[in-house]
Amino acid sequence: MHAITIPESGGPEVLQWAEVPDPVPAEGEVLIEVAASAVNRADLLQRQGFYDPPPGASPYPGLECSGRIAALGPGVAGWAVGDEVCALLAGGGYAEKVAVPAGQVLPVPDGVDLVTAAALPEVTATVWSNVFMVAHLRPGETLLVHGGASGIGTMAIQLAKAVGARVAVTAGSKEKLAFCGDLGADVLIDYREQDFAEEIQRATDGAGADVILDIMGAKYLERNVNSLAVSGRLAIIGMQGGVKGELNIATLLRKRAAVTATSLRARPVTEKTSIVAAVREHVWPLIGAGQVRPVVDRTLPMRDAGAAHQVLESSGHIGKVLLVR
Amino acid sequence: MHAITIPESGGPEVLQWAEVPDPVPAEGEVLIEVAASAVNRADLLQRQGFYDPPPGASPYPGLECSGRIAALGPGVAGWAVGDEVCALLAGGGYAEKVAVPAGQVLPVPDGVDLVTAAALPEVTATVWSNVFMVAHLRPGETLLVHGGASGIGTMAIQLAKAVGARVAVTAGSKEKLAFCGDLGADVLIDYREQDFAEEIQRATDGAGADVILDIMGAKYLERNVNSLAVSGRLAIIGMQGGVKGELNIATLLRKRAAVTATSLRARPVTEKTSIVAAVREHVWPLIGAGQVRPVVDRTLPMRDAGAAHQVLESSGHIGKVLLVR
Repeated sequence: MHAITIPESGGPEVLQWAEVPDPVPAEGEVLIEVAASAVNRADLLQRQGFYDPPPGASPYPGLECSGRIAALGPGVAGWAVGDEVCALLAGGGYAEKVAVPAGQVLPVPDGVDLVTAAALPEVTATVWSNVFMVAHLRPGETLLVHGGASGIGTMAIQLAKAVGARVAVTAGSKEKLAFCGDLGADVLIDYREQDFAEEIQRATDGAGADVILDIMGAKYLERNVNSLAVSGRLAIIGMQGGVKGELNIATLLRKRAAVTATSLRARPVTEKTSIVAAVREHVWPLIGAGQVRPVVDRTLPMRDAGAAHQVLESSGHIGKVLLVR
Repeated sequence: MHAITIPESGGPEVLQWAEVPDPVPAEGEVLIEVAASAVNRADLLQRQGFYDPPPGASPYPGLECSGRIAALGPGVAGWAVGDEVCALLAGGGYAEKVAVPAGQVLPVPDGVDLVTAAALPEVTATVWSNVFMVAHLRPGETLLVHGGASGIGTMAIQLAKAVGARVAVTAGSKEKLAFCGDLGADVLIDYREQDFAEEIQRATDGAGADVILDIMGAKYLERNVNSLAVSGRLAIIGMQGGVKGELNIATLLRKRAAVTATSLRARPVTEKTSIVAAVREHVWPLIGAGQVRPVVDRTLPMRDAGAAHQVLESSGHIGKVLLVR
């Protein structure tokens, strides 16, 4: 088969569409004939040499895909060859075929076409596991989403609104904020022109946000902690603003607040399986009912993955960038 | 009545046993004729002027007491005048009488005398709420307790062992560590001679601690995060080592770990009530069965509260220092 390979670390130009050996599904795995994959920031870090795949994972980038099941490994029940699916991967989505544990596979939801389904696994699993399974966002609470127009952000807005929460978002342009507003976001903060910590205080009458979904890490740590409500929960899923930040423990203690940080890729298969099961139970019905939808910025040919990486690096996109075969 | 008052902030010598107005139980409160109170570090901070009582609380120090119910406010059910009880207070325990919401009152457990019961409310509520309700310590997991010989520490060791966890402690002398070992602690770390982060790695074959109960704050933050296991939880309840520390978010994210900080005193009555109910349900039977016991370093006359504060400031004690009338 063909896959996007990374012969050496570097810029988008190092990515090569090359002939590689076919993957073989191991016990408990299915083999998917890939229709589409999607670009995640982790793929850019992997290309740059900063984020090696976990042990045992495919060396090719791609943390999610959609496609048809082409073969079943030993011991797989509940799936059949030909099923249209999408899947959460530890790697290898930028390829014609990929093998994945059956517990990380989801049916294509009602009303979503096969290619577009590739936009769903990472964002639904990331948002559901962090905002709901870890941070327990409840109806009536306020969620602050940094990067509201990203793939993660657009899904977080919709899921939080679907459960009856209030949503504030930050984004870097009027166009992105308007899009977030159309998705249901209640409070729109332009981080280039406004201080989000001031704005979130204003929008909550000084109470702060109950949950914050953060992708900036160190750069936002102090302001995020200052923006938390009493019993607030800061869920960090990215470190685009650096790794080491000062934590004011007195502020955290006064608020009885929590700081968590997670990544999805390195989790063991058992944890991914339980997250995917929760997504299927709680998120899939909302998508099937049309209440929550995948947001796709554009689709590009998989062999032009470098161009897709450039789109993410320029941050001009809204929602997911897909790679189609 | 008489109470220990703080006419001006300062050292232990500012505390004065003085005549003050009797408290009157409000709706939903009981009035307790105090038999004993106990000293907490928060009392020392209050005496120094660093920790004002929350709005509506008694101006006198004392976050817990034992005694007999002397009167019931309107709307109190389930308690009667003369009942022997202990209680979690927002203040006012260093006094002959104190009024407290009925939901923060507990019966004196079987096998514990009335004075000794004053050693229980703060440590049981703090350990149960942090180690079990927030950090969800599970059987087979490893708990690291800093200050294992303190009132909090001696209760944390016993409760963690009672649920089947493994316990590591730090303390500052061989005598304190031996005491912790007698209470059941499995791993004894002398923080004056050993690096606890190295020792916890050694004791867990490099896995780290699943839960850390910390009283040092900033000074230990980096080493605590380094000492966490995957999915580990750091519960900070004190800041004896400072307020602002550097948080390595990459380490936290790699471990999918959580940092929480709480205090008990500032919580609303509803939260204290649910914590006290959980303590009564889960901890009281263990005390009644003799599996968990209060650890009392010494008892002093309440009017000599200054001397009791000096004991805590010198950190020579093991367990709780009680103040008796």
